[in-house]
Amino acid sequence: MRGINISEKLAQFSEHWSPKTVATINDYDVRLVKVQGEFVRHNHADTDELFLVIDGQLTIRFDDGEVTLGPGELHVVPRGVYHQPISEGETSILLFEPSVTVNTGDAGGELTAERTPL
Amino acid sequence: MRGINISEKLAQFSEHWSPKTVATINDYDVRLVKVQGEFVRHNHADTDELFLVIDGQLTIRFDDGEVTLGPGELHVVPRGVYHQPISEGETSILLFEPSVTVNTGDAGGELTAERTPL
Repeated sequence: MRGINISEKLAQFSEHWSPKTVATINDYDVRLVKVQGEFVRHNHADTDELFLVIDGQLTIRFDDGEVTLGPGELHVVPRGVYHQPISEGETSILLFEPSVTVNTGDAGGELTAERTPL
Repeated sequence: MRGINISEKLAQFSEHWSPKTVATINDYDVRLVKVQGEFVRHNHADTDELFLVIDGQLTIRFDDGEVTLGPGELHVVPRGVYHQPISEGETSILLFEPSVTVNTGDAGGELTAERTPL
């Protein structure tokens, strides 16, 4: 049996802001996503959301501050807290969140992605 | 605001088979654990469990096979599946699982660890 190799999974797609579900734990997803530029400010009313940077640098901007994460650094955005992910260069991120979570939360819009197993 | 740095957290403890909770997402934990040698064979009747190797090499032995994970590789053990983590050298692992999950599952015994935030 083989494990799931994060680097191999990341090599299988190139589009930005489109999370890929690579594993499930009960009703939660492990998702990988490549990002660059500014995402839409949004919140998730019903769930916390974990960001773990695999490669690159991610800033999560809040209404009252921000956190910047490098490789091997993680942050949990609490439910209901508005946040805007921003990355100058391309950054690869691992997300852990309920499988029903929609990437754009309450904001919706053109960046909304379907749940996509990979 | 600062993120949670996995390497910095790992540098704060040295004991084996004693997971440290470094973040929570809803009622789930992100735990870091250092392992070496053979753990007790056990299962978790009520939950899946995710293993992500940070550093080193982990084999998870099942009754009908095994999977070996290196850095950046993950595997989800389904609920109810007997598994025995084994590592010849010291290995650092990230776990995602419900906060109520006990490390030794149905087996219990002296390796059972209290939930320990770090």
